[in-house]
Amino acid sequence: MHYVDNYLPTTQTKSAKMEKVGIGAVDDHWVATLEVPFHRIKYTFEVIGNDGSHKIVGDRGIYDFNKKNLEADGSYFRVPYFHLIDMDTTPEWVKKTVWYQIFPERFANGDKSNDPVGTKPWNPQDHPTRDAFYGGDLQGVLDHLDYLKELGINGIYFCPVFKASSNHKYDTVDYLDIDPNFGDKDLFAKVINEAHKRGIKVMLDAVFNHIGVNSMQWQDVVENGPKSRFADWFHINSYPVEPYHKPTKDKLAPYETFAFEKTMPKLNTANPEVQDYLLEIATYWVKYFDIDAWRLDVANEVDHHFWKRFHKAVTEIKPDFYIVGEIWHSARPWLNGDEFSGVMNYPFTLQVEEHFFKHTLSAQKLVEQLTDQLMMYRDQTNQAMLNTLDSHDTARIKTVAGENEELALQAMTFIFMQTGSPCIYYGTEMGMSGDNDPDCRKPMDWEKKYSPVWQEVHELVEFRLKYASTLGQGTTTLEVTKAGVIKVTRKRENTITAYFNTTGKDQNLTIDPQLSQNYQDGVLAKDGYAIVVE
Amino acid sequence: MHYVDNYLPTTQTKSAKMEKVGIGAVDDHWVATLEVPFHRIKYTFEVIGNDGSHKIVGDRGIYDFNKKNLEADGSYFRVPYFHLIDMDTTPEWVKKTVWYQIFPERFANGDKSNDPVGTKPWNPQDHPTRDAFYGGDLQGVLDHLDYLKELGINGIYFCPVFKASSNHKYDTVDYLDIDPNFGDKDLFAKVINEAHKRGIKVMLDAVFNHIGVNSMQWQDVVENGPKSRFADWFHINSYPVEPYHKPTKDKLAPYETFAFEKTMPKLNTANPEVQDYLLEIATYWVKYFDIDAWRLDVANEVDHHFWKRFHKAVTEIKPDFYIVGEIWHSARPWLNGDEFSGVMNYPFTLQVEEHFFKHTLSAQKLVEQLTDQLMMYRDQTNQAMLNTLDSHDTARIKTVAGENEELALQAMTFIFMQTGSPCIYYGTEMGMSGDNDPDCRKPMDWEKKYSPVWQEVHELVEFRLKYASTLGQGTTTLEVTKAGVIKVTRKRENTITAYFNTTGKDQNLTIDPQLSQNYQDGVLAKDGYAIVVE
Repeated sequence: MHYVDNYLPTTQTKSAKMEKVGIGAVDDHWVATLEVPFHRIKYTFEVIGNDGSHKIVGDRGIYDFNKKNLEADGSYFRVPYFHLIDMDTTPEWVKKTVWYQIFPERFANGDKSNDPVGTKPWNPQDHPTRDAFYGGDLQGVLDHLDYLKELGINGIYFCPVFKASSNHKYDTVDYLDIDPNFGDKDLFAKVINEAHKRGIKVMLDAVFNHIGVNSMQWQDVVENGPKSRFADWFHINSYPVEPYHKPTKDKLAPYETFAFEKTMPKLNTANPEVQDYLLEIATYWVKYFDIDAWRLDVANEVDHHFWKRFHKAVTEIKPDFYIVGEIWHSARPWLNGDEFSGVMNYPFTLQVEEHFFKHTLSAQKLVEQLTDQLMMYRDQTNQAMLNTLDSHDTARIKTVAGENEELALQAMTFIFMQTGSPCIYYGTEMGMSGDNDPDCRKPMDWEKKYSPVWQEVHELVEFRLKYASTLGQGTTTLEVTKAGVIKVTRKRENTITAYFNTTGKDQNLTIDPQLSQNYQDGVLAKDGYAIVVE
Repeated sequence: MHYVDNYLPTTQTKSAKMEKVGIGAVDDHWVATLEVPFHRIKYTFEVIGNDGSHKIVGDRGIYDFNKKNLEADGSYFRVPYFHLIDMDTTPEWVKKTVWYQIFPERFANGDKSNDPVGTKPWNPQDHPTRDAFYGGDLQGVLDHLDYLKELGINGIYFCPVFKASSNHKYDTVDYLDIDPNFGDKDLFAKVINEAHKRGIKVMLDAVFNHIGVNSMQWQDVVENGPKSRFADWFHINSYPVEPYHKPTKDKLAPYETFAFEKTMPKLNTANPEVQDYLLEIATYWVKYFDIDAWRLDVANEVDHHFWKRFHKAVTEIKPDFYIVGEIWHSARPWLNGDEFSGVMNYPFTLQVEEHFFKHTLSAQKLVEQLTDQLMMYRDQTNQAMLNTLDSHDTARIKTVAGENEELALQAMTFIFMQTGSPCIYYGTEMGMSGDNDPDCRKPMDWEKKYSPVWQEVHELVEFRLKYASTLGQGTTTLEVTKAGVIKVTRKRENTITAYFNTTGKDQNLTIDPQLSQNYQDGVLAKDGYAIVVE
């Protein structure tokens, strides 16, 4: 590439060679690092094709490479003036965090006195129905903070804990109250304080796209129709808003909802009153309960305008606050530093599953597509992604892996070797099974503590945190060896090389790994991995 | 393309054929218009290559076209939920505006009592030096508002009018005062009111990237060094900030400047005090003087953070306020609805010049590149671009056209047929010449009023405004005929077809034009144009 200060003539350009850092499905990715004296630069690319073609790729298009075009000012892209205030920064602590996701109704029942009527016995072998209650609560979490410390994680991501009707609590009744079946504010404050004492950060789930039909606001609209002072809080097409409580398959609700879910009317976040209300909630739990992060439910369906106000409000209180959006597709518009720190990295997860479990994506294609994805966002954004393998919204990995525990651990290890904070769904460290929601929400199987699976996950968490600098912020190179083994190289303080054999047969590999599965005497077997630290 | 509601399965997709709307230098551009019932959509593209290859181009990359890939959720791009509040809207009136740019020191001297010492006689044949004064002022503008009405324009874009040291006033001393050599606030209010009475909008020039060294703020820093309460208003690398008044070629200023211009220290717009100060100015002239638009000088070198606050502040007072940034390169980051309405369309201007005047760009390449540019921004943004052919920063078109007035008029007509508001630089309607700055800033040649050139420009302005609906907001198709004539088709209320012969020789063309130059008896001659309205 060729570059020069924006206010110097293009006859004075310097040039720098670019380095190929990744091979994607369609494009290769090249990088050069330039230092400039005045916060500004103009630059253009000289490209020599495999067919010998020689071009300038610049701001106004693609031209033949020659002196005239190289000196044309229009050939240059520009950083007009680099402002620190415009820089996308993401919290440093997230890059050194392993998350643990808790679905509170199913993690542990620490207080039987707050169990809802009809609570079922705590049976990890049950297949929960959509409406079942098992009595999990915050006392159960408090009782097991030492367990989490022992496992080694240093961040808890809580599914909703606010007052709501369902067992999953995504149909909020009151965002300013803890659900009475979970406990109260005193107890919740204690959970957070005790977690912080153990070096564990706390993330809550903000369901701001929609509210529950049992909320005071929606009930007021049901009762008073267009005269309700909350009528403009929603997107209502016609009155009355009934029969929301008798949903039928054919009849659409006369108001906007989450998906086609009649019990979840969509909030009108363009209404300043709604914005102020939600921002009060967002800041309340940060100011008075000292939470460290918000996970934003259905984040892509709420307007950008609101998220920008949200980002400003919470980072003014805690500059290193972590904001992670639930977005299942490519998410560049939300990731420019003024909305979210990162997103739940589903495109990443799903591709890992397609290769490791479903075998619908070759190793080569996986490596190419993950490389493309790494190049889609800024490095600091990739480092702040939330990388889950399973969650309350998906089947558990062991089940997707056809109950093959070694395969599940191999894929989990693969995730732990990548850029982005890994997240363990409660019970996955116990080797729990479970199909799609609601089957993936079984009561925690506490019997399996210290089982061989638990030991392996524990070692993996410790490894990730021991090498957090390299694994959290190092460069990433993804390759497939001639034998078909996936090779991941991370470099920063250390050089960490991880090998994953997904070829279905033994492969020779002479290394001295620090962590491994199915590796012995220079042979990496099926479903095996081996990690070398230098 | 294939599409379906985000919450319906991909087995229920519908498909729509796309229409090719433009051929660019590298890519073709295709469009389809879809209607959806729920503010949301997921969609993917089925592409059949010229080589017969059959692919799906989706959110996660390019795949072979088959049922499995068509039904894969990851193949779909998403509009998660379309919010009106996130929509990029641009002012309607701008799309029906022809601008006239006034450089106040050189337009007309209406009041000799406020002429600076050493004012030179008003001689349009002079070649102005960089420091000369000719006595132009606001009384001169007021005296000629009827002239402007007669010419037909309906928007005035004023170069800076605030108190400053130089003749161009880009080195502001006080943003809240009218330059005493131009007049005072009473007179300025009168100019605006009288312009508004005549249906003429008024745009001012905001120079917020930097301030003049003679400003109170900078003088305080010169005097008090790091103890000045304005020290953080600038980017200062070391003290003392002298010798700002003795600039030498080799020695850089110990502070950030506009370009390498020591008399223009850069403002630190990340400082909230500076932001508040500039926003007070920005809103003062809107609230109390009722201006309609700001043109933002060196807009790309000020941070995005500030421009977002700026946009909010002025549009809260006037929702249809027009904001146009000075950006010479591609400008997508500024044009998403929360910063600028449009930019000064230099990439467009420069390519028109390269073809019509410099002959360094073929007709085919011009058409391709302008098509690419139209596809770079949203339609509403293209419609709010400021399309100049010359300005106080460039040589006058007649000079660039080698004093060929017909050629200059042909290029000007080409600009008037495009999407985006055309802007006439004062004197260009008189056929004035002038090389690069400062030669393009000669005193206005009032003798040439009603000359043949004037008549042609007048007709062009009237034509543009008569067909403002089609020319301002119609679709645009750019082509080159077999004979090499450039054909521009605009469609909305009318179909307007404009032909431009830049081939250097006569071309047969049987039409019945409403406006033309060098067209007779079915022949469009060199430097000619002909416009048909249907």
